[in-house]
Amino acid sequence: MGDQGISRRGLLGGGAAAGAGVLVGGPAEADAKRRRRRRRRRVRRADVAIVGAGFAGLTAASELVKAGRSVVVLEARNRVGGRVLNRSLGAGEETERGGTFTGPTQNHIMALAKELGVELFEQYYTGESVYFADGERTTYDESLPTGTAPPDPLIVGEIAAVVTRLNEMSKEVPVDAPWESPKAAEYDGQTLQSWVDANSFSERFRRIVPVATRPIFGTEPRELSLLFVLWYIAASGDENNVGTFERNFNTRDGAQMFRFVGGSQLLCLKLAEQLGRRVVLRSPVRRIVQGRKGVRVESKRLTVRAKRVIVAVPPVLAGRIAYKPELPEGREQLGVRLPQGRLIKVTAIYDRPFWRDEGLTGTVVSLNGPVNVVYDDCPPDGSPGVLFGFVGGDEARRFLTLPADQRRAEVLKNLSDYFGPQASSPREYLETDWVSAKWSRGGPTGIAGPGTLMAYGPALRRPFGRVHWAGTETSSYWVGYMDGAIRSGKRVAEEILEVL
Amino acid sequence: MGDQGISRRGLLGGGAAAGAGVLVGGPAEADAKRRRRRRRRRVRRADVAIVGAGFAGLTAASELVKAGRSVVVLEARNRVGGRVLNRSLGAGEETERGGTFTGPTQNHIMALAKELGVELFEQYYTGESVYFADGERTTYDESLPTGTAPPDPLIVGEIAAVVTRLNEMSKEVPVDAPWESPKAAEYDGQTLQSWVDANSFSERFRRIVPVATRPIFGTEPRELSLLFVLWYIAASGDENNVGTFERNFNTRDGAQMFRFVGGSQLLCLKLAEQLGRRVVLRSPVRRIVQGRKGVRVESKRLTVRAKRVIVAVPPVLAGRIAYKPELPEGREQLGVRLPQGRLIKVTAIYDRPFWRDEGLTGTVVSLNGPVNVVYDDCPPDGSPGVLFGFVGGDEARRFLTLPADQRRAEVLKNLSDYFGPQASSPREYLETDWVSAKWSRGGPTGIAGPGTLMAYGPALRRPFGRVHWAGTETSSYWVGYMDGAIRSGKRVAEEILEVL
Repeated sequence: MGDQGISRRGLLGGGAAAGAGVLVGGPAEADAKRRRRRRRRRVRRADVAIVGAGFAGLTAASELVKAGRSVVVLEARNRVGGRVLNRSLGAGEETERGGTFTGPTQNHIMALAKELGVELFEQYYTGESVYFADGERTTYDESLPTGTAPPDPLIVGEIAAVVTRLNEMSKEVPVDAPWESPKAAEYDGQTLQSWVDANSFSERFRRIVPVATRPIFGTEPRELSLLFVLWYIAASGDENNVGTFERNFNTRDGAQMFRFVGGSQLLCLKLAEQLGRRVVLRSPVRRIVQGRKGVRVESKRLTVRAKRVIVAVPPVLAGRIAYKPELPEGREQLGVRLPQGRLIKVTAIYDRPFWRDEGLTGTVVSLNGPVNVVYDDCPPDGSPGVLFGFVGGDEARRFLTLPADQRRAEVLKNLSDYFGPQASSPREYLETDWVSAKWSRGGPTGIAGPGTLMAYGPALRRPFGRVHWAGTETSSYWVGYMDGAIRSGKRVAEEILEVL
Repeated sequence: MGDQGISRRGLLGGGAAAGAGVLVGGPAEADAKRRRRRRRRRVRRADVAIVGAGFAGLTAASELVKAGRSVVVLEARNRVGGRVLNRSLGAGEETERGGTFTGPTQNHIMALAKELGVELFEQYYTGESVYFADGERTTYDESLPTGTAPPDPLIVGEIAAVVTRLNEMSKEVPVDAPWESPKAAEYDGQTLQSWVDANSFSERFRRIVPVATRPIFGTEPRELSLLFVLWYIAASGDENNVGTFERNFNTRDGAQMFRFVGGSQLLCLKLAEQLGRRVVLRSPVRRIVQGRKGVRVESKRLTVRAKRVIVAVPPVLAGRIAYKPELPEGREQLGVRLPQGRLIKVTAIYDRPFWRDEGLTGTVVSLNGPVNVVYDDCPPDGSPGVLFGFVGGDEARRFLTLPADQRRAEVLKNLSDYFGPQASSPREYLETDWVSAKWSRGGPTGIAGPGTLMAYGPALRRPFGRVHWAGTETSSYWVGYMDGAIRSGKRVAEEILEVL
């Protein structure tokens, strides 16, 4: 039952119910009340209807309420948070099944945490990290200046050269309009794979590229427009700091540097609590009808009549809503040209973080899947011991075809290779299959192949009458991240306050 | 009103109603009757339910009926034919607003024409064709061995070399499983543009590549996986003849060699007439529910209970149906990774085919849009005179943003440049906007960017329980063409007869 919170296929591990079933007090109570008075209250009125109670929708709602406007947030799931979901470890501790980390220049999510009284703690990275390649296991010190790249002597120079080059190229890509880059046609005309093939020397290096694209994008290099990758790099910064690949990929000084005490979803839960009965769960929106005087947003349980509507779900989900009048060509095509990445998170829970005793950070980079990247994901006090890994791109597609026992066996084999035999017997093993989750249909974000940004990028944020767009896919800085979702929520609230 | 047959935006020319409103006698009558007995007859039973009354669905229905099975075909539009649509020119003459031509090795559609008593006639290509480049107009003789490529002295050698190379590469691509090509990862990892950039010399040549991809695919070279293009070339043949780019692109001995007397839609109209009240119009399917004993196909007007269902619409439309259980990952992703090309057909109707008097075939290849390719589209007796042009890819996207008078002016400017001032005053001007057509959402076919065929190609034809798939996108030979749609209908009927 708890599976419904995230998966449509039941690929979750046994203990999913607690996390997936989380409901905030306000909306849950309101929800129960509303059910009792169903006949009378099938329609609500508000200044703004908001579709989706992830970071984008909740932030927009919060900003609009602060400005004195009324809102109703319609959420399809029985929980808030979207691609962000806590999982209880007992004793008040939480681990994350979706978006987890934050880091420097992600100022919007850090400001929100401060505002809501949610504390940060540093991601554990004391000691050495593991690099694994075809049976050979080596360790490296991430805290050294040279430590950010895996210490593969065969390719360490090549990695540095390629990353430097990508960073340079990304400087020409405007974060708010990558399609206006002077070389947009060139960059958006090729895949990351083409570019890597033409700008690298060794087969070994080419093998490590998907090890980065799988956790970051949930894709293979062949699926990615080079322009989209450069945009992502440029977006890993803020108004005062230029984006770099390292800030995106690294723990130290990067996007994996901090975690949230109580889990990242706590921010959404607190926002929803403040919004109270303005958030309505279990209400997938089916139809948005624009009229001369307003807009009607029809969900399974409730119709909202509003002046404006914010669609704060990914383009693939926005594309499944029926619109009257129909969406213009550009926005309609985003629904079939910006698929979500293929990303599955696997989690192994142990009594203790035994790897720390051996001087390991818990971080792994591995040429051999299904799990190509691993992080320590313990609560602040290190108890219990939690490791999570990413299964992405082709590895995720293959993984989904395997029976449950084989999936578990392959993951634990990976973890044993990386951390020794102790890793093979977790007290609990979880899979979080964002690919099959009906109300996400993949993650971490919408992925642009060649040509999509040039033809359809301008439609990402362009309002369609009374319909406005939010969600991390519409952000400039930190597109694809929780911080980008929050930025998009603020931007869309401003956009609406200007016209309302 | 007649616009509903094809467009959701009313971009059609004035005289659309006659063609778009075509209904065959049988289904129309049945439809009227059914409406009268609505309460009693909301559910029908059949061995096989079929979604979509284009060539694929109608062929499958016809084959199954021949084999003694009962079928119901549910069609969203108020007409049959899908991406194929006649338009009356008066006096029993027709012109085509969608799929038009056939040619050598398209044996399935030619056999169907013979069976249905529909005659072929040769596409007019007596005289010289026009090549237009930046204000310079030249003519060339298509009937000469060298005549198949535009006679641009700057690039004629380059065109020949590149086409030869593509043809050679396509021989390694199996038409029924291009993803199993020995070089699939290499070919599906790059765009056509990348390959052209690396394998051509002149800027002028690079400018002519989209002139081919716009009419053939409705895309720019940057949107196309090289593997997809090679598959398309390989598919331009049959079991006894290897595919070539020339057979795809050319009139003489190519896919534009013949037309159908009475227009291509006549084949669909005749098939539908034979099927009678088995074809139900105006019935968009919303939901397909599989149970232990059968499948329930719910449309707006009618529910069909059947043993199997054939979904014979393009993946982007199949993806908008709700499935219970949900589609598996592979097939679900085709709905958001195989967008239809952006293709608009413009038609100018004159009292006479005046270009023929001047020794012109009516065929044009032009570097300057919006209309990059033109064909003579007169009825067999040459009266009235009809020219049609393709507006595709970036040109189509730009075209859609223009007001109606500017669109018309740009097209007639093109035609005047190609055929002289007489072309600027047609007695009628039509636009057929497949992009905005709600029940097509583009054309001519589903387009694969890099990575899609490798990851999701195998899902194109793989049945999902009681749900089987047809449509030209699922064909091997002549994928993307009417012939491929008919092949897919036969294949799916055989598939079902094996299990039923």
